[in-house]
This record gives sequence, structure tokens and C-alpha cells, in this order.
Amino acid sequence: MTIAPPLARARADQPFSGGDADQPLSDAAADRLIATLGAEARRAATRLAQAPTAQKAAALRHAAARLRADEALLLAANGEDLARAETRGLSNALRDRLALTPARIAAMAAGLESVAALPDPVGAVIDTAVRPNGLALSRVRVPLGVIGIIYESRPNVTADAGALAVMAGNAAILRGGSEARASNGCIHAALVAGLEAAGLPATAVQRIVPADRAAVGAMLRAAGLIDILVPRGGKSLVARVQAEARVPVLAHLDGMNHSFVHGAADPAMAETLIVNAKLRRTGVCGATETLLIDRAYPVPARLIAALLDAGCALRGDAEACALDPRVTPATLEDWDTEYLDAICTVGLVDGLEGALAHITRHGSHHTDAIITEDAAAAERFLAEVDSAIVMWNASTQFADGGELGLGAEIGISTGRLHARGPVALEGLTTYKWLVRGTGQARP
Amino acid sequence: MTIAPPLARARADQPFSGGDADQPLSDAAADRLIATLGAEARRAATRLAQAPTAQKAAALRHAAARLRADEALLLAANGEDLARAETRGLSNALRDRLALTPARIAAMAAGLESVAALPDPVGAVIDTAVRPNGLALSRVRVPLGVIGIIYESRPNVTADAGALAVMAGNAAILRGGSEARASNGCIHAALVAGLEAAGLPATAVQRIVPADRAAVGAMLRAAGLIDILVPRGGKSLVARVQAEARVPVLAHLDGMNHSFVHGAADPAMAETLIVNAKLRRTGVCGATETLLIDRAYPVPARLIAALLDAGCALRGDAEACALDPRVTPATLEDWDTEYLDAICTVGLVDGLEGALAHITRHGSHHTDAIITEDAAAAERFLAEVDSAIVMWNASTQFADGGELGLGAEIGISTGRLHARGPVALEGLTTYKWLVRGTGQARP
Repeated sequence: MTIAPPLARARADQPFSGGDADQPLSDAAADRLIATLGAEARRAATRLAQAPTAQKAAALRHAAARLRADEALLLAANGEDLARAETRGLSNALRDRLALTPARIAAMAAGLESVAALPDPVGAVIDTAVRPNGLALSRVRVPLGVIGIIYESRPNVTADAGALAVMAGNAAILRGGSEARASNGCIHAALVAGLEAAGLPATAVQRIVPADRAAVGAMLRAAGLIDILVPRGGKSLVARVQAEARVPVLAHLDGMNHSFVHGAADPAMAETLIVNAKLRRTGVCGATETLLIDRAYPVPARLIAALLDAGCALRGDAEACALDPRVTPATLEDWDTEYLDAICTVGLVDGLEGALAHITRHGSHHTDAIITEDAAAAERFLAEVDSAIVMWNASTQFADGGELGLGAEIGISTGRLHARGPVALEGLTTYKWLVRGTGQARP
Repeated sequence: MTIAPPLARARADQPFSGGDADQPLSDAAADRLIATLGAEARRAATRLAQAPTAQKAAALRHAAARLRADEALLLAANGEDLARAETRGLSNALRDRLALTPARIAAMAAGLESVAALPDPVGAVIDTAVRPNGLALSRVRVPLGVIGIIYESRPNVTADAGALAVMAGNAAILRGGSEARASNGCIHAALVAGLEAAGLPATAVQRIVPADRAAVGAMLRAAGLIDILVPRGGKSLVARVQAEARVPVLAHLDGMNHSFVHGAADPAMAETLIVNAKLRRTGVCGATETLLIDRAYPVPARLIAALLDAGCALRGDAEACALDPRVTPATLEDWDTEYLDAICTVGLVDGLEGALAHITRHGSHHTDAIITEDAAAAERFLAEVDSAIVMWNASTQFADGGELGLGAEIGISTGRLHARGPVALEGLTTYKWLVRGTGQARP
């Protein structure tokens, strides 16, 4: 591979990026690289933790301006990535995720500005108390420290993740996919330029250039250097992270989401919501993958027809197949399959109990919804479904940090620790206890 | 070993305790045992998650009454443990931690009642919002699920940890030390009796009887069965957990705590606080291990003499040695040693900057304190020291869940994720997002 000007330029701007793009690393070399980047990141994090809101926001606004100014460079770099993708025979879907357009670059820059406008979580007081002995307590939000982000083809993750990490006062180590190498280099250069323009350390956002697996392994082993890892990618990445990580992980697992149409659902609302939940965008993690219909629901055939007519393939149990000849029989695996496509499994259940039992068995604790006019049934569903996001009379496609008011997201956590559901600035912080006394000794 | 009546009785009451006390397990058998206990725990957790506050509190109050009623049995069981400890040649310190007295049993029962009286975190609304599209959002606290607790000689951890887990709506799997086997059996029996009396599943608190390492290994591998592990024990346990765990861990590492006497400290307060922080109880994790004295502090020799006169051995840098002939030279290791004894390292530093640099290099992110009358210096110390608990003009011995108003604690987290500092009920919960709509589809 030749190093085209945009990448060379990006490199010149990134003295702190480690590694060589073309040389696979040994495990030991990868560990050394991460140790070096990690030490730089820790120093940067110490400065970012004390940086005022305005300074962090200025860095992101500068970076946005730089992205806009670099549009031509960025499109050229992206063209290089796309050409390599074509040579390598990447799928159309992957190439679409990789592709940048002037509109996508504008959206990325606007995204940086919107993160810059979010309320700064650092320094927020969670609670306060005065103890009987006069000690004044407060719990105050502080940055997490060093965030590692491992991601795949979408170049905008470089901007989004870097921006969220910085705004929450952290340092980030980014390891994007090899397919987006040149594009990521340009975007990273804009972030670095923004940090420098605002007087913050350029090492607050570092990028690992080599795309081989050794660097990922070293990040997974980097306990003490990286405080939290955010893997954003397909099942194989997530599985590797789950198996190997010695660093805490903010895991974003399957969105094996259910929409349950209860017996007391309004049919018009049910049809609108189910078609939207399944088909608005089939590739997002909030898409519904299984439709459960209460046997007491009066017009199940109309609901099924609505989905089929909208272009969705349906795989059903015997009762669903009997409702429409276009429904094909579901296999056992279908009930646990996140299609991310215009395919939906559909089954009939006995009321709320049947739906709860099915979701307990097959759900992935991401997002599940009930559609009903019966408030008591809805409240029981909200209380008993053990998922990060539980909805009543709404489309599961709202499972998104922006839609839920966070302004952005670094991922949707399906784990139970630290942060659950969409994670943005608050999820990238921790807290400390401040104790202000007047000389109290403990009896 | 013969099975004395108290243990036999406890066993008869604990159909859900797994394993045989005298038979070491193979790894595969340990995995099967944890899989069985884990499945029971998950079923119990589902019921506990929906249990009303009064029912959980009743279980703990019943258990407290049972502990009091069983005092003679418990003392006999503890006598058996102590006799075995003597045969095995356990240290006096360990035997003291193991020993129960009527007063300690009364304190354990009172502890259960005080946890029962704490505000229930489950169902608490963290925040709410209404989106422009009318979606009503709320984040609501829910239990974490299944808590694994691995601990050593203190039998009261059985009661404390079990009670906190139950009150926060979780199921617990307890793995205590072999040395406290009979005592733990009786205390566990009381918890089980309390759960049953309150109509809650006995399997909400399960206990692993075998004390061999295989059970610990199986708990560390039990991803998906155990949601969080709380190791409470010495360095070798914590190190093993850090190295092997595939389950998220609430880590309680060293309390390598510093007290810094600033140039503007009030000498009388400094002397009182330092003697208390170091010597009130030397074996607790909140004890001060290193004393840093500002070179600008006017009466350092008096401060050092106060500690020495109170019975503390001091190891110092050259300047500290020069202040009092009783101070012996510190080795390099001393600056990183958690003595948990009447020994303290002492060094002179250049003001706040010197103290911050030393703490950054040698601290364990547990608890650090500044003593000063200069509010600006104190606020900078509070802001910049990156520890779970940072104090101003107070003894580091206040680093304790009870003292910081939590009513109890399951441990002090020195990690950055999920919970930091003392962890009690709130730290044993997570949250979910509830989204209440009126038919909103996502555009």
C-alpha cells in the first residue's frame, strides 16, 4: 500500500499515534506500544480532568471547524479507503458504512458541536450530607480516566467517541478498523488540532494506526493503563473482548428485542409501531427482531399482513403461519436471532405471562416493548422485563442515546454494571467522595 | 473432622447449600455446583427484584431474632471453628477476627436490623424527562441480580453481606473461609430462616460449604450466572480475583492512604488527627500509612513526637530522621507499604505540589487527607487527588460506609467503574430506562 497524501498529512499531525500501518506487531511489541500510549494518556487525562468546560468545548468546536475546512482532504482519504475496500471485495453494506459524503462530514462536525454544547458532567454534585459529627460529605462526578475504544468501519466513531471522551474529561485511545485507516487519520488529525488550538494536550486523543489483532489484544490486557474499554463492532469482536479482556468493558451485545402486542392494544397503533419498530432501519440495534402477539389480540392477521405488505419476511410458529400463507415456519434458532434485516420472527403467546416468559428466555436485556391500552398490564411489563430499556406504546427504534436525550452515545450497554442502556457523558465519569471536616477524629 | 451438632443443624436448614465440606472439588464439579447454585439464585433474584420493601425488611428482622435465639448454638459452632484454628496454628490476629462473643452476636443481629431500616434503593427514580415528541422517560433503580461474595475469616460478613444483598433485591452466593465454616453455617441458617419466615425464597442467600480453591475458581468463571463478585480478603485473594475473574468484580484493593499536614495546618488539630488516623485501629483499610509533612509546617518535630509517643514506629526520609532520633530510615518499599500496623512512613514535601506528586505516585486511590487552615489549598487537594475518598481536616479512619452515612458497607471500592468508595445498597443496584409513549413511531 502506498501512503497517500491525506494519511501522510494526518500522520505528521499525530506525533502521538503509535505503530506502523503496514507492519503486523508481535504481542510484546503491541504491549510496549499500549504501555507508551497508556502512559501518555494518563498524563493527558490528569490535565483533562481539571480542564474547564469552556476549554473542552472549544477543542471540539475547533475540531468541527477543522473537519469542515478539511472536507476535500477527508473525501480524498475516504476515497483511498473505499478503493482498497473494493479491491478487497468488501460487501456493499460495509462500504456504505465506510463511505463519507459532504453531508456526512457536515453531520460529523455538527455532532462535535452538539457534544460541546452538552452540560459538563464533571464536577456535578450527586448528593451531599452533613453527618451528626459535622463532617460535610459530597459525591462529585469526576472523569473515568483513560477510555479505550475498539471499533470497525464507521469513520464517524472516531469523531463521536473522541468528542464524548474529551468532553467528559477523559483521554481516549482509539483503535479503528483497518478499512477506515485513511479516513480515521484525517478525523483524528482534526481532533488533535482542536485540542492543541484549545491549549489541551494532543495526547488526550491518541490513535493506534496498526490494524492487526495484536494491538487489540494488548488493549484487552492493559489493566491499569486503560480504565474502560468500549468495543463497538460485530459479534466476533464482542466475543473476543468478552473472552480476553482484563480491563473493564462497557459491553454492547445483541439487540435481541421484542415487541409484544397485548390483547388490549389499539390495532391502528400496534400496526404503526410494529412496522416502524421492525422496518424503519433494520440494521440498528434497537430494531425489533421478534413480534409476540397476545392470543387475546383481536386482529392478529391484519397486524401480520401490515408487516408483510411493508416488505418484511416473517418466520412464525404454527399459529402465525396459519394466519397468513406468506409466513414461513420458524426454526428454533430464529427465536434467538438478531436479523438486522427485513426479517421478523412472530409468535402467539398467552397474555402478559406468556410474553414475559418468552422475553426472559430469549431476550438480550437490550430493549423490549409492550403495546397496550391497559395501563396495569403495561406497568407490570415495565417492572418485570429485565432489560436496559423497556417501552410502552413506543417503537423500539427509539433505543438511542440521542432519542433518549443524551445528545449522543458511545454505545448501548447491555451489561448491568456502571451504566446501562445508552451511554454518553455521564457513563464516561465516575465519582469521588469529598469529606470536609473541622478536625474530627474518629472515636 | 467430626460434624458437630450446630453444623449438622445448619445443614439441615440449608437444603440449598452446595458441596461437601470435606471433599475437595474438581474444577468440573465446581463448575457444575456453581451452575446449579447460579440457576437457583437467578430464580430467587427474579422474585426478590419484585419483593416489597417490608417483606425484605421482615426477612432481615426475623433473621436477627433467630441469631439472638441461637446465641448458644452459634457460640458452640464458633468454639468448634476456634478449636480447629488452634490445631491448625492460626495467628492470634486471625483467631481474634474469627471469634464470636455474645456482644459480637448482638452487634451482628443489630446490624441486620439496621440494614432492614435503610431506605430501599429499588424503585427509586434517578431522573425523569419528557422528550419533545412526548415520550416520558425515567431511570429507575433495579437490583443487580446475583452477587457472589468471597471472604475470609470474619463470620459477621455472612450476615452483613447477605443482608445488604437481600435488602437491595438481589440473590447472594456466599463463599466464606474454611476456618469459619461452622459459624458461617449457623449464621446462614438464620438468614435462610428469616427469608422463609417472610415468604421469600430460601435460595436468595446460598452458601458454598466446600472451602477449597476450586469453588472460588468456578465463581470467578461464572459469567452470566453471577453478575458481580465482591472479594473481601487479603492480597492473595484479591490478586487471584484480579487475574482470573471473568465476572465483573467490585475490587477492594490496598488502602495505601496518606495524610498530608500542610504548612498552614493547625498544629493541635494536626497532632490529634494524625495520631487518630494512624493508630485508632491500625488494621482497618482507612488507616493512614504515610504521613507527609510540608516543609513549611512550623512544628514537624512535635508532630513526629506525638506519633512516636503514642506508640507508633516511624520510618522516615533523611529529613524526618533528623527531626527525632527514634525515626529509622525508610526503605524504598516503605513508601508503598500498607502496614496495617503501628508503623508509619513519614516524609517531608514541598507544599501542596510535593504532596500531590507523592500521592499520585504512591497512592492506591483509596483515601487521602489534607490538614490545613488554608481553604484554597484544601479545595485544590480535594479536586486533584484522584482517590475514592478525599478528606480535609478529618481522620482517614472515617473511610467506612457506616461513618459516611450508608448504614453499612459490603466493601470499599478502589476501582473506578460502577461504584467507588464505600459500597452499600445503592452499589448493589443498577437501573433501567422506562419509556412511556402514546404511540410514537420514530421518524
